Amino acid sequence: MNAEEFQYFVGMAGTVAFAVTAVLAVTPKGIDLFGACVMGIITAIGGGTIRDLILDVPVFWASDLMYIWVALLSSLVAFQANRFMGRKSIYQAMLYLDGLGVALFSIQGTHKVILLDFGWPLAPVLLGIVTAIGGGLTRDVLAGNTTLLMKHELYAVPVTLGCVLYTVLIAIWPEQAALDGTVSGLFIFAVRAAAIHWKIALPHWATTQPNKE
Amino acid sequence: MNAEEFQYFVGMAGTVAFAVTAVLAVTPKGIDLFGACVMGIITAIGGGTIRDLILDVPVFWASDLMYIWVALLSSLVAFQANRFMGRKSIYQAMLYLDGLGVALFSIQGTHKVILLDFGWPLAPVLLGIVTAIGGGLTRDVLAGNTTLLMKHELYAVPVTLGCVLYTVLIAIWPEQAALDGTVSGLFIFAVRAAAIHWKIALPHWATTQPNKE
Amino acid sequence: MNAEEFQYFVGMAGTVAFAVTAVLAVTPKGIDLFGACVMGIITAIGGGTIRDLILDVPVFWASDLMYIWVALLSSLVAFQANRFMGRKSIYQAMLYLDGLGVALFSIQGTHKVILLDFGWPLAPVLLGIVTAIGGGLTRDVLAGNTTLLMKHELYAVPVTLGCVLYTVLIAIWPEQAALDGTVSGLFIFAVRAAAIHWKIALPHWATTQPNKE
Repeated sequence: MNAEEFQYFVGMAGTVAFAVTAVLAVTPKGIDLFGACVMGIITAIGGGTIRDLILDVPVFWASDLMYIWVALLSSLVAFQANRFMGRKSIYQAMLYLDGLGVALFSIQGTHKVILLDFGWPLAPVLLGIVTAIGGGLTRDVLAGNTTLLMKHELYAVPVTLGCVLYTVLIAIWPEQAALDGTVSGLFIFAVRAAAIHWKIALPHWATTQPNKE
Repeated sequence: MNAEEFQYFVGMAGTVAFAVTAVLAVTPKGIDLFGACVMGIITAIGGGTIRDLILDVPVFWASDLMYIWVALLSSLVAFQANRFMGRKSIYQAMLYLDGLGVALFSIQGTHKVILLDFGWPLAPVLLGIVTAIGGGLTRDVLAGNTTLLMKHELYAVPVTLGCVLYTVLIAIWPEQAALDGTVSGLFIFAVRAAAIHWKIALPHWATTQPNKE
Repeated sequence: MNAEEFQYFVGMAGTVAFAVTAVLAVTPKGIDLFGACVMGIITAIGGGTIRDLILDVPVFWASDLMYIWVALLSSLVAFQANRFMGRKSIYQAMLYLDGLGVALFSIQGTHKVILLDFGWPLAPVLLGIVTAIGGGLTRDVLAGNTTLLMKHELYAVPVTLGCVLYTVLIAIWPEQAALDGTVSGLFIFAVRAAAIHWKIALPHWATTQPNKE
């Protein structure tokens, strides 16, 4: 398995994770099979789609429908499984896989924008973030859930730092893109995994408290 | 009246229905004339606009503003009428017209994607669904209403089945597009009409129940 | 300072105002530094981005990242300041600056669409409105706040009237674009300022009351 195949494989794993965590996130509110599949697909491909619209390039799934097939199948399985299995343990495992997906999608998104030489150096970071969290935000809005922007979970912050890190590393060592990406992606995954494991939230100085009205 | 004129006429009828049902859906929450018109226009043209952005073709209303004029006028009339007439009976009639609109927009959307040979066979189905329900979803999100994805109404399911049916029929009888479309559209409308008349919801096995927290 | 420099300067002032009011609007709900910056940037550039996607032209910030840098910096300052200063007085001042931003963005948006000869005469008005309020709507949806479309504040109405006014003036005096724009922009700002100062809401005949359920 060469580097490209590896990246494709991890991309598909991330798609599975995004679709499954999406379905598990909306089923507690009561949803039907169809709604679950739509949520799964939107979460898995939504962020990359918004990025590609802004870049004005063909959406990434138009030339390779495998992303949508995988998202659809994962959603179907997650929906059925969700009704028979205990939720906590699966969800926990899926959170780590979701962390892997987020790490990969962040770097892939940033990389695509850098290759197109689009709005360097801010746009690669911004659109890397959009790639990673755009689908989840859309899902939360459609499901009527609180979006992750309003939570104090360590989610968007490691994504942002990872995209910044990758952009900086590419600026310094442009010929080492694979290494730069691996380091940045592992950073995102490590912070996410730590946040999931030890339930780390943002420090007090970096947040405002809701008014007690 | 030939086939094309007929389709245009039904498209306008669907636009009227979408705008009117949108206004009737948001007025109970308290809205002003301007907000009502925006909601009406977004609901009527939103789905097709998202589809065209993803297809990277000019938005369908750019070359024929009649869609927006009709949506605007329908919204104005619906807003005024809403304050003087009884709601129940109009709304019921509009639901059927909305069913006709949804049937037509689904097939038109799917057809447009097939003609462009874009992401066959999944993208025609997906973007057919987007065409039919994208505007309504946007309206519900902006109005703070529960989106139809979180309801157990038979709405998105017949749309999906109809788009799949049309795609399958086109694959088998490509030269009979008009007939394929009529059959698929009538199928969607029939299921919608039955769901409205007999208040049919999705069967238990196809939904999850909300947690009783 | 010539006309173009003046417009650029006011555009940046509007960007500051949009970012700051966005941050001040979401901090009472409890948000972190990162979320605040995302909200600030989305509010400042969201409307123009949606407009450019529909126009199918490169997003305006791709070629001039200063808009995003300014939005980012303003958000950071607003987030920190918000925690140490009294809220009421800053917010009041920012509302007027926001009114100036809305006035400018409306006219700039309408003007861009007219220059491209896109969907005259409806699209310039519609996309002028989108430019001015699209970012704020996106922010409210992501923050779980009631969108301004569901409030009776005089916000979207003066924007709409101003965009219509500018389109009409351009139709009559096309060679006086600068004057047409100044008049229309001042109209929007004047109505907004009056609405802020005297807390003017929409008249009763133009709104529906929420059901008392």
